[in-house]
Amino acid sequence: MAFLALAGGVGGARMAHGLSMALPAEDLLIAGNIGDDFTHLGLRICPDLDTIMYTLAGLANPETGWGVRDETWNMVRAIEALGGPTWFRLGDKDLATHLERTRRLTAGEPLSGVTEALCQKLGVRHRLIPVSDTPVPTIVETSEGDMTFQDYFVKRQCEPLVTGFRFDQATASVLSAPLRGAIDNNEIDCVIICPSNPYVSIDPILAIPGMRDFLNTNVPILVISPIVGGKAIKGPAAKMMSELGVSPSVKGIARHYLGITDGIVIDIADEAYGDALRSSGMQVLVTDTVMRSDELKKSLAEETLSFARRLRG
Amino acid sequence: MAFLALAGGVGGARMAHGLSMALPAEDLLIAGNIGDDFTHLGLRICPDLDTIMYTLAGLANPETGWGVRDETWNMVRAIEALGGPTWFRLGDKDLATHLERTRRLTAGEPLSGVTEALCQKLGVRHRLIPVSDTPVPTIVETSEGDMTFQDYFVKRQCEPLVTGFRFDQATASVLSAPLRGAIDNNEIDCVIICPSNPYVSIDPILAIPGMRDFLNTNVPILVISPIVGGKAIKGPAAKMMSELGVSPSVKGIARHYLGITDGIVIDIADEAYGDALRSSGMQVLVTDTVMRSDELKKSLAEETLSFARRLRG
Repeated sequence: MAFLALAGGVGGARMAHGLSMALPAEDLLIAGNIGDDFTHLGLRICPDLDTIMYTLAGLANPETGWGVRDETWNMVRAIEALGGPTWFRLGDKDLATHLERTRRLTAGEPLSGVTEALCQKLGVRHRLIPVSDTPVPTIVETSEGDMTFQDYFVKRQCEPLVTGFRFDQATASVLSAPLRGAIDNNEIDCVIICPSNPYVSIDPILAIPGMRDFLNTNVPILVISPIVGGKAIKGPAAKMMSELGVSPSVKGIARHYLGITDGIVIDIADEAYGDALRSSGMQVLVTDTVMRSDELKKSLAEETLSFARRLRG
Repeated sequence: MAFLALAGGVGGARMAHGLSMALPAEDLLIAGNIGDDFTHLGLRICPDLDTIMYTLAGLANPETGWGVRDETWNMVRAIEALGGPTWFRLGDKDLATHLERTRRLTAGEPLSGVTEALCQKLGVRHRLIPVSDTPVPTIVETSEGDMTFQDYFVKRQCEPLVTGFRFDQATASVLSAPLRGAIDNNEIDCVIICPSNPYVSIDPILAIPGMRDFLNTNVPILVISPIVGGKAIKGPAAKMMSELGVSPSVKGIARHYLGITDGIVIDIADEAYGDALRSSGMQVLVTDTVMRSDELKKSLAEETLSFARRLRG
């Protein structure tokens, strides 16, 4: 039985890592969000793909949630002295990924091929695939006007109040070839939506027509709630929910995915919501969802996979 | 009295540095060679401008002759692990220069403006100006066919036998605006050809029609020989001369610039050639031309400037 994990950000990377510890390479496909991707200093930067790749390769920086561990910052210091832009911090080692990716893209390789090549070089055995080979940039609608994702997230540190999100280029986009191929060959038995930000990690994936159509088939789908005890483990998910007038709780998450998912995995801290979620028609797994260690990542993955197998059965 | 120094490579950078110690900022304009410029990993790299800029800023790497001192190499190590190109070594600090230059060029600034801005940020007071704002790439003709300069110089380590050099794009190129302006405003009283490689540092400058026309006016011109005792201080000048059937000596250098220069500065090691050079119609200054220290750079500059003033007088 093969699983497709939809992933973005740190929660997505951790869950993908857990699934990679619990499944052989041929039984897992990780579809990475590309809504955060942008071009900076001429370099094509794919923050979610990189966070997932570095996490699976054991190279992720545990402090920042992005970039690589044991990083140095000599380029950034030097470009600051030259009056260049420093708002998006690029580490010296991380730069190699962006330079090599940009080189390969410029040479005509698709993003999916580049991502698979980089993963292979870093010893990642499981397949990480961008959801599309063409950009689907997230536009953040705020009280201060529309912003690109990185302007909102990094430059403005999520400060502006959000009023909505748009994925204007999604309608014209198609799934990346390897993802399209896996779907067409009926290789995917179940979809797992990782505990990622629903608005800026998962929705940009769901906005691609080919993905939406696939999820409308009878493939079982489950989501791990990124909200635990009314808070996001990392990132602005809870803040966004509040600003959009949505309850920052597992109920808000369940409502977001209503009609899409068959099951939801919530933390024991939210056990009290279990019955309400079940009565809305969802199957519910209550467990420890906070991935504080590799052991907890793996056990959450294993419990989620058992739950998924029951969903399908 | 204001001087225009034509410079490329390490010899050019050292001489330009000496001149900058001997002249106030308003009396020196350094025209840098751009024949070595190329695009690597999407970055616009200008090796000669950078070597001159770093040298004037006191940041040059004394061991390599290129790049900055106290450099780190974490990007290069990381891109090697990714299977990316490593034949042209880019240090982490040096990368900032290429990224910021490329960013500014992409935004539409001319190379001359970008170079002046970078120099200013690094505290360089004297003006360094690329000879043109558009590329004039040097093509090296070899026994193995035509090569770009960096393919010949770095990738092939100057191994192929050279048969000639071409600057195909020079005919259509014009001087950079600040250089054109300085000429049109009669700001230049004398031209000093630095002890740079005649074929790949100076000829690409002379190939630009606007520069050739200016040198054909009655402005006094002198050259400091890059060949001392039959050898080049640094780089492949002597090797190239031999392969082209030219004597790798100050006589060979004098012949190369015959009809262009009024005077030549040669090292005391080559004093024996003085009379022969004088009889060919050139004025000759014999002095210590090997710039082993900042003091020697400055004294060579001062002697050269006195010689130039006599030439003009």
